[in-house]
Amino acid sequence: MTGAGASRRGSGGTSPARERADRYWCEWALLDAGAGPAAEPGVLVEVSGGLITSVARGTRPPDGAERLRGLTVAGFADAHSHAFHRALRGRTGEDGGSFWTWRERMYEVAGRLDPDSYHRLARGVYAEMALAGITCVGEFHYLHHAPAGTPYSDPNAMGRALIAAAAEAGIRITLLDTCYLAGGLGTDGAYAPLEGIQVRFGDGGAEAWAERAAALRAAGAHARVGAAAHSVRAVPPADLARIARTAREAGWAAAHIHLSEQPAENAACLAAHGCTPAQLLDRTGFLAALRPTLVHATHLTSDDAALVRGTGAGVCLCPTTERDLADGLPELDRLAGAPLSLGSDGHSTVDMFEEARSAEAHERLRTGRRGTLPAHRLLEAVHTGGHAALGWAAAGDPPAGRIAPGARADLVSLAVDGVRMAGFDPRRAADALVWAATAADVRHVMAGGRWIVRDGVHALIPDAAARLDAAIREVAP
Amino acid sequence: MTGAGASRRGSGGTSPARERADRYWCEWALLDAGAGPAAEPGVLVEVSGGLITSVARGTRPPDGAERLRGLTVAGFADAHSHAFHRALRGRTGEDGGSFWTWRERMYEVAGRLDPDSYHRLARGVYAEMALAGITCVGEFHYLHHAPAGTPYSDPNAMGRALIAAAAEAGIRITLLDTCYLAGGLGTDGAYAPLEGIQVRFGDGGAEAWAERAAALRAAGAHARVGAAAHSVRAVPPADLARIARTAREAGWAAAHIHLSEQPAENAACLAAHGCTPAQLLDRTGFLAALRPTLVHATHLTSDDAALVRGTGAGVCLCPTTERDLADGLPELDRLAGAPLSLGSDGHSTVDMFEEARSAEAHERLRTGRRGTLPAHRLLEAVHTGGHAALGWAAAGDPPAGRIAPGARADLVSLAVDGVRMAGFDPRRAADALVWAATAADVRHVMAGGRWIVRDGVHALIPDAAARLDAAIREVAP
Repeated sequence: MTGAGASRRGSGGTSPARERADRYWCEWALLDAGAGPAAEPGVLVEVSGGLITSVARGTRPPDGAERLRGLTVAGFADAHSHAFHRALRGRTGEDGGSFWTWRERMYEVAGRLDPDSYHRLARGVYAEMALAGITCVGEFHYLHHAPAGTPYSDPNAMGRALIAAAAEAGIRITLLDTCYLAGGLGTDGAYAPLEGIQVRFGDGGAEAWAERAAALRAAGAHARVGAAAHSVRAVPPADLARIARTAREAGWAAAHIHLSEQPAENAACLAAHGCTPAQLLDRTGFLAALRPTLVHATHLTSDDAALVRGTGAGVCLCPTTERDLADGLPELDRLAGAPLSLGSDGHSTVDMFEEARSAEAHERLRTGRRGTLPAHRLLEAVHTGGHAALGWAAAGDPPAGRIAPGARADLVSLAVDGVRMAGFDPRRAADALVWAATAADVRHVMAGGRWIVRDGVHALIPDAAARLDAAIREVAP
Repeated sequence: MTGAGASRRGSGGTSPARERADRYWCEWALLDAGAGPAAEPGVLVEVSGGLITSVARGTRPPDGAERLRGLTVAGFADAHSHAFHRALRGRTGEDGGSFWTWRERMYEVAGRLDPDSYHRLARGVYAEMALAGITCVGEFHYLHHAPAGTPYSDPNAMGRALIAAAAEAGIRITLLDTCYLAGGLGTDGAYAPLEGIQVRFGDGGAEAWAERAAALRAAGAHARVGAAAHSVRAVPPADLARIARTAREAGWAAAHIHLSEQPAENAACLAAHGCTPAQLLDRTGFLAALRPTLVHATHLTSDDAALVRGTGAGVCLCPTTERDLADGLPELDRLAGAPLSLGSDGHSTVDMFEEARSAEAHERLRTGRRGTLPAHRLLEAVHTGGHAALGWAAAGDPPAGRIAPGARADLVSLAVDGVRMAGFDPRRAADALVWAATAADVRHVMAGGRWIVRDGVHALIPDAAARLDAAIREVAP
């Protein structure tokens, strides 16, 4: 990779005062994964004011248009991120243990962060995302307070650090401000108090959480704020019900919750409440009131899966993290009817191509069958599916995740002239993207009309890797 | 990636007549994955006559030595390849079906190849391997004859095309010449005759197969020839026994067989022979006489696994192919005691880092536990494990898969200054390689003392991707 092209063209297209639109001629473009797997040849895209203003197919490259060689697609939404987990990559593979012993290592990192260091770390992670074609992230954020649980002078200092980090990396963010009240759920039905590092996560109750998070609303055009409850392990039923009652009037952009990630969560919930975690979300009104995005949904019963489908709740799979953490295999065939999104979660990998192919690959390993989700449906999950899950598809919003007139100008231009994509068949472009491409094949990325990656180099943070490296070393175990 | 460095230094170090050794100073080097996960700083490696002649640790960069920034490791062995399957990448992900319907697509490609087109395709695939740090491949080769099953005027024209392709790509090859006699095994115990494309695979009997393959012995210093039986589906017991009786005296470099890849193979074998495929290999003497490498070993019983461990046979896992083909999950914990190697098999991905991490990741999904194989043990499988499985670790052979005096000069130099490897901890270098690196992070590759990749560009075939693309288009479905 070289930086040669980084200055070839400035960051254009964001100012409505420009006289005319920027014009890009795509050798191949997959306009809408939801419509099928094929890419169109010779697509002329005009961009103005952060939006795509016109799309013409089958054109020859006109004068004055920049040529984008290879394959261009819409920007990706990464619907589930814990930015600070990135510091653990390549540092737990010699260890054995379980999800729960891994969590102790993760807490070590959480214990070391403050708003400044988290800002630096998250900026590096979001820059890594940008380099991988991700133009919108959902940050599931629960590291709210200073050590000992003391609020910072700005009680939203951590959340604002994350929102600022996304702005500096040039991507949109939905900050999923997370309610985290209990340290765990015992089989006796008792919720343990927050302990150790966990005291940084807690607001004391659902009302206090909502009150603090409400102050984050006016967060900038690139940011929206959503609500999250960490899990049925960390939020008692009465608080889930309280969030469900108040969140609609609170106007959150989205609602998320971790669900049935580990068998131990199901076992504790059954013992304590006599029902599965999904049933508990149903009983407390959380499902019906919020139609939340259910993250993982790994260990659902068939009744749970039917319940999820029936309420219109979405499912966010995080396959590379689920295999890293030994979570197990979800029954994708039962969940595929629900609105689907994908997340890189713990960032053992930041590569939405890998998430997409792994969702289907894991299902193949589980069932012995190929093709539960064809490639273009998997791609749809990181395009329109992810944006819907993150609250960027509300009434009146410009579409996101498609290359269409009026849509947000989020573009990812990929090389197809490397060895990995050799044999690329544009009639099956989705297939090539999901099963052959990697984040390393991303060449240029535009978010909201602004180029944020050029020739594989972050246009706003050219030394992104070195900065990320330094930020990790500050806090890594 | 740029070609700027490709001409910086020619292909040196192969001539024993050179006055002095080439010297390389590695910023970090992982010398021997079998010894643990840590990399050493400042390692000076001297190379002469295709071998490493000295290794000094903790040095400062001396004058006259080329500096290799980042992390340097030994070259990788890819122990199981079907080169022509590469033409299917990104072309079956919209299809549903099973392993068996996928096989029909694969046969379409097999039907189109001749020695010239297979030479071009394999050269591109082996160049892709070189770019990924693979310096030695095991090619499981059964596409022997012309359509209609007629031998070519040179009955080994296909095998020689593969051996030549490896030479041109600069890597070593073990051609695993494969005996393939039957079209399938019915539950009545009857072996079906070869049909359609399959007639290209057959030699008529094990003796005829052995006689033809024997003519391939003198194959060049970069090549060795091993024996393979395709599977218990394709080789009847009497022929397995015949191969077992004769192969030792025939002096094959290695012996391989596909084993229990799909449940249907086990079911047919049980119905036909009243035993599992592994037991059939035991009864026919194939296990004891050949101590073969068992490819896949996905659906072994616990008795099968004990049998394998007891005979000293090896296991070659191909995790990315096994998930692509919906094969299922092997019980890695039971197999981990056997000599382990890894293969990219159908080449849906050519990335030995991904194979290594996937072997452990799949086991995590199956068991809910982390750490059946720590990172350095996984890396060992693509270093010394793979070379042993391919017959490059015979008595008198220079070691392969380690950076040590006297070892083959196979070096892979990786960038650690990109976003994926940000946070690299040299004390846990194996962890970073297995869980963070990708083939795209490979910068320079040396095989047998010759640089074959420089700055991400193949030094012998600079237009490798375009050539691979063209070769795929000739034959792809």
